[in-house]
Amino acid sequence: MTAAKFIVIEGLEGAGKSTAIAICQQFLEQHKVDFINVREPGGTPIAEALRTIVKDNHVEQIASETELLLMYAARSQLLHNVIRPALAKGQWVLGDRHDLSSQAYQGGGREIAATTLDSLANIVLKGLKPDLTIYLDIEPAVGLARAKGRGELDRIEQQALSFFERTRARYLELANNDERIKTVNAGQSMELVHHDIIAVLEQFVKSNP
Amino acid sequence: MTAAKFIVIEGLEGAGKSTAIAICQQFLEQHKVDFINVREPGGTPIAEALRTIVKDNHVEQIASETELLLMYAARSQLLHNVIRPALAKGQWVLGDRHDLSSQAYQGGGREIAATTLDSLANIVLKGLKPDLTIYLDIEPAVGLARAKGRGELDRIEQQALSFFERTRARYLELANNDERIKTVNAGQSMELVHHDIIAVLEQFVKSNP
Ligand SMILES: Nc1ncnc2c1ncn2[C@@H]1O[C@H](COP(=O)(O)OP(=O)(O)O)[C@@H](O)[C@H]1O
Ligand SMILES: Nc1ncnc2c1ncn2[C@@H]1O[C@H](COP(=O)(O)OP(=O)(O)O)[C@@H](O)[C@H]1O
Ligand SMILES: [Mg+2]
Ligand SMILES: [Mg+2]
Repeated sequence: MTAAKFIVIEGLEGAGKSTAIAICQQFLEQHKVDFINVREPGGTPIAEALRTIVKDNHVEQIASETELLLMYAARSQLLHNVIRPALAKGQWVLGDRHDLSSQAYQGGGREIAATTLDSLANIVLKGLKPDLTIYLDIEPAVGLARAKGRGELDRIEQQALSFFERTRARYLELANNDERIKTVNAGQSMELVHHDIIAVLEQFVKSNP
Repeated sequence: MTAAKFIVIEGLEGAGKSTAIAICQQFLEQHKVDFINVREPGGTPIAEALRTIVKDNHVEQIASETELLLMYAARSQLLHNVIRPALAKGQWVLGDRHDLSSQAYQGGGREIAATTLDSLANIVLKGLKPDLTIYLDIEPAVGLARAKGRGELDRIEQQALSFFERTRARYLELANNDERIKTVNAGQSMELVHHDIIAVLEQFVKSNP
């Protein structure tokens, strides 16, 4: 296959991202692709420390702009120290969330202006874009019910349902306007979701021989 | 006196900022001004956690953009949770560093583009500017020698001398182009520095009756 690719799985809490990652991993192994796994926010010691700050419940309120800057600070570390070096040496990168999460959560959910997000994306991404993003679309209430099954909800998972509805609407809008983002109906059974993800991956590999 | 003021002390490591803060505090107390002290990066639990990340020595390299975003994330928390609420209820704010440090260190020292700094300043400061900044100008080698007297140097204090020379040059350039920034020659004796700081404060109070 051609140059190393950057594949990202996106979606609300409980959409099935971790499950989808496992499916992609198996697919890449079967295709003898050398790849690494990353997750955002996180993936380096400093980025993981920032993840903890963002997800923990604090007495102090975290301002929307602070949350946004911390997400991009973590992304900056991961890009510099992990993603870019991996791609440069020919390893594919399989990501659990990336920039689309900031656009959906901070842009849609927190209603931060698109111009603000654009300026941060320019500073941090410098044009890097995933080659393929699989967006797992789920009704917020369904996803949150699944996530609750895992245990205590973190600071972001505790946001109001309306926050996740704005986030989902933004996800759908962005996915519909970018052909590198493929939407999978994550409200289906595990079998059907599995089938749809494999179909997207097969199609991706076929068009990148 | 009129509405609450925001006064900031700036300068390289060892310039004498902490010493100057003590002088300002005494001055404000004598003038029966209600004020609070803050320092950057830091001043809230989350911002102090970010200060630790930025100042500690890590195995992992911190990218320039990450450092920049963390500085602004800390500033965002401090502005939202401490500085703006204090000013709103009539308390003056006395700051040990503020935005000028990012412009000098990240802009001058790290050579990050001015447009990048401007877009972050727009997102975080939303037009807020200190009413008075006292910039303590010192030769980097002299300041660092003083700072070494305090003990181990942190990650930023360990930068090359050329880094601090670029930082100082940017400080001077910015100070010369903004009448709200007053430069004090911090290479003088403690007595003369003290005298110059008091003169700046007297002048400031006179023009803000
Ligand atoms: N299509 C599905 N139908 C029902 N449950 C699912 C489905 N996909 C995932 N789950 C379950 O929902 C929970 C959350 O899935 P997970 O993959 O951890 O989501 P995410 O990583 O997006 O938060 C897990 O218990 C998982 O087994
Ligand atoms: N004008 C001065 N001349 C000589 N030493 C000074 C002067 N001002 C401060 N110092 C000493 O230099 C050291 C660093 O000063 P400090 O106020 O902590 O600087 P900063 O807070 O800017 O790093 C302290 O030991 C302080 O007593
Ligand atoms: Mg998961
Ligand atoms: Mg000091």
